[in-house]
Amino acid sequence: MMITLLTDFGLADHFVGTLKGVIASISPKTPVVDITHEVPAYSIPQAAFLLDQSWRYFPKGTIHVAIVDPGVGSSRRPLLIESEQHYCIGPDNGLFSFILADPKSKVRHLNKPKYWLPDISTTFHGRDIFAPVAAHLANKIKPSQLGTLITDPIRTPALLPTRLSRRTWVGTVLHIDRYGNLITNYSQQQFDTLRNRPFSLTAGLHQTELYASTYAHCPEGELCVIPGSSGYWELSLANASAAKLTGLTPGSPLELTLA
Amino acid sequence: MMITLLTDFGLADHFVGTLKGVIASISPKTPVVDITHEVPAYSIPQAAFLLDQSWRYFPKGTIHVAIVDPGVGSSRRPLLIESEQHYCIGPDNGLFSFILADPKSKVRHLNKPKYWLPDISTTFHGRDIFAPVAAHLANKIKPSQLGTLITDPIRTPALLPTRLSRRTWVGTVLHIDRYGNLITNYSQQQFDTLRNRPFSLTAGLHQTELYASTYAHCPEGELCVIPGSSGYWELSLANASAAKLTGLTPGSPLELTLA
Amino acid sequence: MMITLLTDFGLADHFVGTLKGVIASISPKTPVVDITHEVPAYSIPQAAFLLDQSWRYFPKGTIHVAIVDPGVGSSRRPLLIESEQHYCIGPDNGLFSFILADPKSKVRHLNKPKYWLPDISTTFHGRDIFAPVAAHLANKIKPSQLGTLITDPIRTPALLPTRLSRRTWVGTVLHIDRYGNLITNYSQQQFDTLRNRPFSLTAGLHQTELYASTYAHCPEGELCVIPGSSGYWELSLANASAAKLTGLTPGSPLELTLA
Repeated sequence: MMITLLTDFGLADHFVGTLKGVIASISPKTPVVDITHEVPAYSIPQAAFLLDQSWRYFPKGTIHVAIVDPGVGSSRRPLLIESEQHYCIGPDNGLFSFILADPKSKVRHLNKPKYWLPDISTTFHGRDIFAPVAAHLANKIKPSQLGTLITDPIRTPALLPTRLSRRTWVGTVLHIDRYGNLITNYSQQQFDTLRNRPFSLTAGLHQTELYASTYAHCPEGELCVIPGSSGYWELSLANASAAKLTGLTPGSPLELTLA
Repeated sequence: MMITLLTDFGLADHFVGTLKGVIASISPKTPVVDITHEVPAYSIPQAAFLLDQSWRYFPKGTIHVAIVDPGVGSSRRPLLIESEQHYCIGPDNGLFSFILADPKSKVRHLNKPKYWLPDISTTFHGRDIFAPVAAHLANKIKPSQLGTLITDPIRTPALLPTRLSRRTWVGTVLHIDRYGNLITNYSQQQFDTLRNRPFSLTAGLHQTELYASTYAHCPEGELCVIPGSSGYWELSLANASAAKLTGLTPGSPLELTLA
Repeated sequence: MMITLLTDFGLADHFVGTLKGVIASISPKTPVVDITHEVPAYSIPQAAFLLDQSWRYFPKGTIHVAIVDPGVGSSRRPLLIESEQHYCIGPDNGLFSFILADPKSKVRHLNKPKYWLPDISTTFHGRDIFAPVAAHLANKIKPSQLGTLITDPIRTPALLPTRLSRRTWVGTVLHIDRYGNLITNYSQQQFDTLRNRPFSLTAGLHQTELYASTYAHCPEGELCVIPGSSGYWELSLANASAAKLTGLTPGSPLELTLA
C-alpha cells in the first residue's frame, strides 16, 4: 500500500512537506511518492491529464491524493473514488473525470470528520482532510467508514476532436511537456492512419505534413507528428521546443486534414 | 524515526541527492522526507517561517535537518536542538528562532568530528556534518555524544506588528506562497477581531476592508483578508496573485487600522 | 538496495511519478531516491557531472538510473554498467563517461525484452525499459540475465584544461550551481598551488587574483577562487551569483596564469 501525491502546491512552500508529516503521523510505514506538485496553479484539466497518464503504472491498492482545489473551504465535496482497485482522494471539481469515465467506479462523499485533523482550516484541506483520510485508508479503515456513496460527482466532458467535414477535424493541445512537446487530443488509436496516410496538421501559423516514429527521426528544425508515450499524437521539434516555435498553449486549436 | 530536509539547495544540483546518499550509507532504513529545497538562496527568515509551519505535523522523534547557511566554513557553530521530542540540526544563524522560543528546548554545539564524514569541505557542511549527524542520531547515538550543551544560540527577535497608535499597527509580509498569497505577521489569535469588526489594511498602493472566510468567498478581483492555514492573516486575490497585484515582497510593510 | 534517479524530465510532468510507479509495481519494497530531475533538457555533460558528484555517497549495491536521452527510440543502446559495486542504467550516449573511466567497469547492452514493459513506446524508454530493468535488478535478477557484455560504450573524452604556455592554461566552466557559483574544470588536486601562489584567473570581462578558503572569507562584491565541495576550484561571489556577474555559462573558457 502506497500513497501518491499530485497537486498544484509547488515545491517552494512547506505544503507538500506538511502533507507528508500528517501522513507519517497517522501511518508511519506507508511510503509516499510524488507524481508532481507543479501543476499550474488552479489548472484542473492539466491535473486530470497528468493523473490519467500515471495512475495505472502504480501497484493495485495505491491511494492517489490529487489536489487542485480553487473551491477549498466552499461547499464543494471532498471525494474518495474506487476504480480498478486503485483509490483516488481529492475535491469534487472534475479532477477525476478520466477515472469516473469507468462506470464501475464507486464514489464516496468524505463526510466523517472523525478521520480528519481536529481543527479544519478553510484553505488547506490537503493537510486537514485529504492527507489524514488517505493515511487512515492505508491503515485499513474501510471506505464505507470514511464517507457515504454518491452518484453525482462532477464529470467534465471528455475533450475529443470535433469533426468539421469528412476529412477535417479540429482538436486541441491537452498539455505541454518539459521538452515543449505539444500533446494533442488526437488519440493514436482513433487516428492510427497518421502513420501511413498523408495528412496536414495546422498549429497556429505553422503547418506540418511530417510523421516521425521517434524524436531522433524528426529532421532538425522541422515540426513532426510523433507517437508520444501518452497514447496521443504529439507535435515535436527535434532537440527544441515545439511550444516555443508555435506559441501554442493548452487549449489552442489544432486542425487536422487527412488527404 | 524519520529525517526531514529543508534547505535553499534547489533541486537542479546534486546537493539534495548527495545528502540522501550520505544518510542512506549510515542509516539505510531511515526514511527521508523533503519539506522544501526552494527556500530563496541565503534567506534565513523564510526558512525559519517554513520550518515553523511544518515541523509539528511530523511524528515525535523526527529529526529535522534545516540548512540555509551563508556562513558555512566560518566559525558559526553547527547545532542540535531538542524540543517537544523533535530534533533540529543545522547552522547557528537564527534559523531555529521559532523553536528556540520554547524555554525548555535544549541546544548542543555539534563538536564531535567522530560522527562527521572523514573529510570536511569548507562549503558543504550539509553533506559532511549535518547529514551524517542526523543519520547517527537516527541510529540511536545519544545527543550527548554528538555535542556539548550551550545556552547562547542565535535567536532572531520575533517579528511582531508594532503599535503606532491606539487603533493602528504596522506589520509586514512574512512570506509569499505559491499562489501569490501574502502571509502577514498579524496572527489570527491576536487580531481575532478582524472577523467581525471593520478594518482597513494598506498594502502598498492598495487597500482593503474585506474579510472572507475562504478563497471561494473572496469576490473576483478584490483583495481580501483571509484566515489562512498558517495561523496568520493572509492577503489573497481569488484565483490570482495578490503578490503580483500589490508588488509587495517579504519584508514589505502592512498598515492595519481598526475602525 | 536502493534506486536513484537522475534525469532531465523536470518535475512538472508525470514522468518521474510514472517511473516510480513502474518500479513499485515490480519491486515494491525498494526505496527510490531522486538525485535531480532538473538537468537542462538534453544536456548530457551536465548530467555526467552531477552523477559523478553524487554516486559515491550512496551505499554499495545502489542502482543509479540516469536518463538524458535525446536519441530515445533510435538505435542507441540501453546500458547497464557495474563499477565499484554500484550499478548504472541509462542510454549509451556519453552520460556515463566518468564511471567508464574506471577500466574495471563492466558494461552490458540491455537486450532482454523479457525484463521490460510489454509495450515499448518510441519516446519514453525510462518508463518502458530503464525503470523495469532497475526494479528487476533490485529483485536480484542477475546482470547477465539482463544484457550481454560489450566493450565499446560511448566515452566522451575528459574535459581537462589545456596548457597554452609554461604558466598559462585554458579551462572551462563545467557547471553553474544554484548559488551561481561557477564550477571550473581546474581540479583542486592538480592545481593545489592556487592556495598559496599568486595567480590570475580570467572569466569573461572579469579577472580575479583572490583565493578564499570559504564563502564567508570572500570579500563582499569580489570574485574569489574557492575550494568548493566538488573537488574542482569554483569561482564565487559572497552571497551573490558569480554566474550573473560574469555572464558565463557551462562551456565558457577560463584562462589561468600562475605568477
